[in-house]
Amino acid sequence: MTPSDQPTTPPLNPLLAAVAPPPIADAQGWVRGLAPVPGRPLIDLCQAVPGHPPAAELVEHLAARLHDPAVHKYTDILGMPALREALAADIGRVYGARPSPSHVAITAGCNQAFCAAMMALAKAGDEVILPLPHYFNHKMWLDALGIHAVPLPFRPEAGGVPDVDEAADRIGPRTRAIVLVTPNNPTGAVYPPEVIAAFYALAQKHGIALVLDETYRDFLPEDRRPHALFDDPAWPETLVHLYSFSKVFAITGHRVGALVAGPRLMASVEKAVDCVAICAPRLGQEAALFGLTSLRDWVAGNTLLMRSRAAAFRQAVEGLQGWRLVSIGAYFAYVEHPFEGRAAYDVARSLAQEQSLLTLPGSMFGEGQDRFLRLAFANVPGEAAATVAARLAAFAER
Amino acid sequence: MTPSDQPTTPPLNPLLAAVAPPPIADAQGWVRGLAPVPGRPLIDLCQAVPGHPPAAELVEHLAARLHDPAVHKYTDILGMPALREALAADIGRVYGARPSPSHVAITAGCNQAFCAAMMALAKAGDEVILPLPHYFNHKMWLDALGIHAVPLPFRPEAGGVPDVDEAADRIGPRTRAIVLVTPNNPTGAVYPPEVIAAFYALAQKHGIALVLDETYRDFLPEDRRPHALFDDPAWPETLVHLYSFSKVFAITGHRVGALVAGPRLMASVEKAVDCVAICAPRLGQEAALFGLTSLRDWVAGNTLLMRSRAAAFRQAVEGLQGWRLVSIGAYFAYVEHPFEGRAAYDVARSLAQEQSLLTLPGSMFGEGQDRFLRLAFANVPGEAAATVAARLAAFAER
Repeated sequence: MTPSDQPTTPPLNPLLAAVAPPPIADAQGWVRGLAPVPGRPLIDLCQAVPGHPPAAELVEHLAARLHDPAVHKYTDILGMPALREALAADIGRVYGARPSPSHVAITAGCNQAFCAAMMALAKAGDEVILPLPHYFNHKMWLDALGIHAVPLPFRPEAGGVPDVDEAADRIGPRTRAIVLVTPNNPTGAVYPPEVIAAFYALAQKHGIALVLDETYRDFLPEDRRPHALFDDPAWPETLVHLYSFSKVFAITGHRVGALVAGPRLMASVEKAVDCVAICAPRLGQEAALFGLTSLRDWVAGNTLLMRSRAAAFRQAVEGLQGWRLVSIGAYFAYVEHPFEGRAAYDVARSLAQEQSLLTLPGSMFGEGQDRFLRLAFANVPGEAAATVAARLAAFAER
Repeated sequence: MTPSDQPTTPPLNPLLAAVAPPPIADAQGWVRGLAPVPGRPLIDLCQAVPGHPPAAELVEHLAARLHDPAVHKYTDILGMPALREALAADIGRVYGARPSPSHVAITAGCNQAFCAAMMALAKAGDEVILPLPHYFNHKMWLDALGIHAVPLPFRPEAGGVPDVDEAADRIGPRTRAIVLVTPNNPTGAVYPPEVIAAFYALAQKHGIALVLDETYRDFLPEDRRPHALFDDPAWPETLVHLYSFSKVFAITGHRVGALVAGPRLMASVEKAVDCVAICAPRLGQEAALFGLTSLRDWVAGNTLLMRSRAAAFRQAVEGLQGWRLVSIGAYFAYVEHPFEGRAAYDVARSLAQEQSLLTLPGSMFGEGQDRFLRLAFANVPGEAAATVAARLAAFAER
């Protein structure tokens, strides 16, 4: 069946083949199969997951819902109407202005919301402005589609908040969107509302989209609305808001997120979601709906917990010899490591293998990030901050 | 904020904007809000869903599993190792040759498996051979990516089985894959193993991929292995096998499917799945694992049920004045309607609105299909076949 003089190996799509490998899986591979060091269990700060289980009431609710045959069936492509309605209401509560439920698409996670948004907005050869450091899956997806990610310079001196004038300088005829992640992954930086407003005005002026990934908006350091963009009646023409239920309700494995946009974009998003998902998993949608309608207090408690955890990590890391805390926020700390000239990948791998401390190297978040590591601290209790600091200190001294 | 002399509406990706709207949602819209006709409740033959709920044991198992905190967390990108292993073993049982678990990727449904496979194989401007009529989401996804779908002629006289020589004539330098769906959606046609083997040899000879969507392989009309391709040790270089757990375990809402391929392709698939899903929903994976390991008898019972349903529909539709049964198989019947020159879309919509019988027009499955309708009969009991036939007959006579 295999004539030896014939080609038998199909060529691959060179764009996807050239995309960087998935970072979390790569980092997890550094410690896979390693014998645990006695007295030094692995502390995993590599993935942005809550360290606690979901609320007991949510688990009970899901167990009960399983007995409804409808829970095992497809929903509408854009999600359960009740969930779209509940998220619209929740946005009204948090942002002070409420979109229509028809503006809400439920997706199988926030990554999928980003994928659908990008496919709706841009094609191969178009450009999207992506501040450095970027969330790795964003860059991977743009690369896979042949959409050119135009970087904005990292500004560690500004706590990682990007500059709108630098964005303005980079807008050209092929620019289709600016992507901001706030609170930021990987830096934890919270962009001030006036910075977000300035980016919005810039996008509006140029007739491009502002894609705002607010996965971590439930863990802001203060109780205030993240921005006022939904106040503008014209927001559906410019803003694409992305959200995740994974972190707020501790249901990462259920895969449910959302995209909020105007009707023109939504028609395209619906096609993309139909193809890649048909619909988000129904039980995850049930979990999100229960969370939005019944877990307000539970979420508030976790928000406070995460704030105290951020404070504990700030205190533990700030005084460390050789290390510098660049920014810290909702879920992440971004730190400068002590080893000038040494690749962040090598630093992070050694830290994992020598100190049982798993972090991600800045280089996984884009060019020029070799001095930095990302610590995703939501996964461990605040008490672990001192141990993390001790391991960082020991690593710097060797 | 909105200078009136400035553009404010972002341009959309013209490729996705031009993609046909999702057919199921479109068809469901024909009857939404219509008052039910007394004595003539809607019979919904438009979506390929099992009409029965999942096994009671499966529901109980999932309810118990919810109390394990791990069930609410991410899995590996390519799925739970135990599920990858179990599917590899199940393929060994059905096809007589067992792939390695490393050849198996778990995806959030079979649509997603197709999306990842296409992104791994082809980019904008490349070509993929797609027999007519095609599964609509396949065409939508290729269109969205700018991959040219090269049609193979529909052969109603051959029961809808495509011709390998016609495929050979259409292979050019940009061809990256041939896609076959067997048992077929929309026609129900089961491609004979020798036809599948001939397509495989053709793909192998030309160094392109054969993508085989076998979503409906659990509902074959006879107990026999669908093909022998896994017998060839070189299969990982050419074959990409797609599968769904949705129909076999009646868990469409849980979103879980699979892709089986060699390591080169798998490296790209893993990147695509990481971006669009991170991982398939964990509870769906738990459901699939339970199904594969504990529901063999339950599935066998459903297979027999579906065969008797197909027989009932065949008998009911075959004798109908004006209608012609082109093919019938696992989940679908493909019928020629009586109205020459009348668009299938118009026929299907009228049938839905006048006879409360919801089907999909052939035109949703590609060019030249205006004489046909797809009946997805898995959704209704075999007893309904006579009612369906009576409504078709009444519609033909008016």
